[in-house]
Amino acid sequence: MAKLSVKHLLGIKELTPEDIQLIFKTAEQFKEVINRPIKKVPSLRDITIANIFFENSTRTRLSFELAEKRLSADVVNFSSSNSSVKKGETLLDTVNNILSMKVDMVVMRHSSPGAPHFLSRHIDANIVNAGDGTHEHPTQALLDTFSMREKVGELKGKKIAIIGDILHSRVALSNIYALQKLGAEVMVCGPKTLLPKHIHELGVHVSLDVKEALAWCDVANILRIQLERQQLKYFPSLREYSLYYGIDKKMLDSLNKEIVVMHPGPINRGVEISSDAADSKQSIILNQVENGVAVRMAVLYLLAQSKPSQKA
Amino acid sequence: MAKLSVKHLLGIKELTPEDIQLIFKTAEQFKEVINRPIKKVPSLRDITIANIFFENSTRTRLSFELAEKRLSADVVNFSSSNSSVKKGETLLDTVNNILSMKVDMVVMRHSSPGAPHFLSRHIDANIVNAGDGTHEHPTQALLDTFSMREKVGELKGKKIAIIGDILHSRVALSNIYALQKLGAEVMVCGPKTLLPKHIHELGVHVSLDVKEALAWCDVANILRIQLERQQLKYFPSLREYSLYYGIDKKMLDSLNKEIVVMHPGPINRGVEISSDAADSKQSIILNQVENGVAVRMAVLYLLAQSKPSQKA
Amino acid sequence: MAKLSVKHLLGIKELTPEDIQLIFKTAEQFKEVINRPIKKVPSLRDITIANIFFENSTRTRLSFELAEKRLSADVVNFSSSNSSVKKGETLLDTVNNILSMKVDMVVMRHSSPGAPHFLSRHIDANIVNAGDGTHEHPTQALLDTFSMREKVGELKGKKIAIIGDILHSRVALSNIYALQKLGAEVMVCGPKTLLPKHIHELGVHVSLDVKEALAWCDVANILRIQLERQQLKYFPSLREYSLYYGIDKKMLDSLNKEIVVMHPGPINRGVEISSDAADSKQSIILNQVENGVAVRMAVLYLLAQSKPSQKA
Repeated sequence: MAKLSVKHLLGIKELTPEDIQLIFKTAEQFKEVINRPIKKVPSLRDITIANIFFENSTRTRLSFELAEKRLSADVVNFSSSNSSVKKGETLLDTVNNILSMKVDMVVMRHSSPGAPHFLSRHIDANIVNAGDGTHEHPTQALLDTFSMREKVGELKGKKIAIIGDILHSRVALSNIYALQKLGAEVMVCGPKTLLPKHIHELGVHVSLDVKEALAWCDVANILRIQLERQQLKYFPSLREYSLYYGIDKKMLDSLNKEIVVMHPGPINRGVEISSDAADSKQSIILNQVENGVAVRMAVLYLLAQSKPSQKA
Repeated sequence: MAKLSVKHLLGIKELTPEDIQLIFKTAEQFKEVINRPIKKVPSLRDITIANIFFENSTRTRLSFELAEKRLSADVVNFSSSNSSVKKGETLLDTVNNILSMKVDMVVMRHSSPGAPHFLSRHIDANIVNAGDGTHEHPTQALLDTFSMREKVGELKGKKIAIIGDILHSRVALSNIYALQKLGAEVMVCGPKTLLPKHIHELGVHVSLDVKEALAWCDVANILRIQLERQQLKYFPSLREYSLYYGIDKKMLDSLNKEIVVMHPGPINRGVEISSDAADSKQSIILNQVENGVAVRMAVLYLLAQSKPSQKA
Repeated sequence: MAKLSVKHLLGIKELTPEDIQLIFKTAEQFKEVINRPIKKVPSLRDITIANIFFENSTRTRLSFELAEKRLSADVVNFSSSNSSVKKGETLLDTVNNILSMKVDMVVMRHSSPGAPHFLSRHIDANIVNAGDGTHEHPTQALLDTFSMREKVGELKGKKIAIIGDILHSRVALSNIYALQKLGAEVMVCGPKTLLPKHIHELGVHVSLDVKEALAWCDVANILRIQLERQQLKYFPSLREYSLYYGIDKKMLDSLNKEIVVMHPGPINRGVEISSDAADSKQSIILNQVENGVAVRMAVLYLLAQSKPSQKA
């Protein structure tokens, strides 16, 4: 059986194109499973997974939990709000404690970029990064690219625009890595203050004009404007953002082709995307959510094949 | 097999008397199940249920969760405190996201009256209303009437008094609907400021005198005084309320009959009910809690029989 | 089959030495189970356990939850943050409500010393005390002594030093009881302000000098300095505490023997213990965590053998 080249899913950066294709192929099978009347397989019956979320999350935690339960894994949840982190314990001590209770895999969200990479150098269990600060969110990029591919076919040569707050987005960075490994062309688009300084080093097209980006692309992945960043000085107001970068159905209809519209959620209707665009036939937003469970099942299943006693 | 006339349990208002009797009959069978050494049946083995609580709840959430687990359903919990609701997402988007993860049934508590009714017009999964603001709390009314019937026989012609804060109580409204559909006579009793203005339109007797209500009824369902409403100007003080409407054992003993005493919990001992009344042999408060699990199993089981692809 | 002399695990004080040995023997078997590829046994398949935590806890709650799941019990969690306790309900009413839902065992953490003892006089279900204020934390003492015994053999005649804030520590009190029942000699060591006034009545050696304690003992159980107590007037500053009572590798190396180093966690590295001591080969801190799951499985399994209808 084919295996991943990695023991952990820390980021897309560490994956080979073959890894990504293997995850896609496996996810296709699991997508069939979750659309059957009996949505479960016994594959991870002997595996215990801890979901360790140091940042709040709803959809990602729920998606992982459902993926784990459909693989018949034993699941325990741990969130920072009631954690010993507050009691002054180090991250490594916290995780080592959980692992000593014979946990096989750790799904972790943490506010510090690199936290799962640090952990992977010190522990034996498989780690899945469910978001590390503004760095990577690899399962989101895998479900995004899986969903694009399902809609427009293999991504080689396809044109994908990522629109919004690129600077603070782990979704953007992971998407860029995944799309490039799959041979797609990437354009990022957003207000100048929300683009990283060294964006050109990432090998992507850059545009400040959303109409240009839409005219160029086959698929538009529209990022969420994070309301909690409104306090930052260089951050545009919602009204301003919506005026210059908000995407509505009229804009989509004015293009001379039908592009695919995506959004990682949660949506701010009327800010980065209008309701008529989000709910249009071109939108695959809810397919992304469905595929998220299948893709996460694939990642967990494939990582469980690596022997936990061999350090990557 | 008999089926419910509805696809969702939004409120008692939408049920037929036959629906209620079917739920009772099914709950009787499940009550036997949960009193066996092995308290589980495999009935909903292939069903995934999301408990979505936008308001805090302990007993209702726990009762649903146990009912679901005893039916062997897969269960995921979602509470507003760590939810994307705070991130500006609409209710419909939140629920559509969860459903895209292949969830079959939604148990929802929400602070807005009508929230589950709104949802039912837009989604395919079965919805169980676990309390919508001050509107309805149908499973509470079903377990209340099931418990009354268990104690005093069929409710046709029986006299039931509901005592307390009728104005803010979803328990009261759902009880009134259920009791009337079952042919019982209903009296509501409480301070004038805690009775709805249009109470007479509900076809119930009204009394401001708790002794009159107790002398009249076969069963007294005593509502909880919600401490968090103490700030309202027209709300009586606890001392005042207790003095005029609090029920104790002496009052019960002074009646020329033995009435049944109920309370949906949590009890404020010494406010709306004294300890000697709550713990008396006439009290069926803990039976209500036990029956809650059986009744919720019946509701979930019966709704799962309806085909999720047919909109009600 | 051998049985415990108690129906509840309220504290170590109530156990016989034979009870403790029976728990150890059973835990040894469960430790084998959790180190197998399939870490589960069907022993408590027909048992429902409620974890009721009125105080926050991570490791203890997680350890119990994993123990319960590996025994195949049905598990429901209840924490005070979203509880009806806030709504003015009494502890007994809260627990009676949960038990009416057909829960067989209760694992409870509560801030009031004696809370589980009070409950045990009023309810039928088995109770496991997971920490009651500054009183007892019996499963911690059982896993501590189990871990010591695994390392140094039977504890009769062995010398154990407990070092730190003895006054506020339920771990210290439970350890003292367990060690004495097993025939060990106990010394407590800490600043005078952190020793109970009547410490001599407990039949332990007392030292104010950590070097003396280390030179005397075979095993040092180093307690956590609870940062949240820093506000107390008589509490030493962290710097002060660390200077006089902090233990590092150099101190351990200067002894003419190799003692075993323990800590119940979470560790404050650099306060009560240095990193080189905590991570040294003498440290069995992570073994304690692993053994915690096995010991808790043993306790739950053995208590489930007692008939719930017979009050202890």
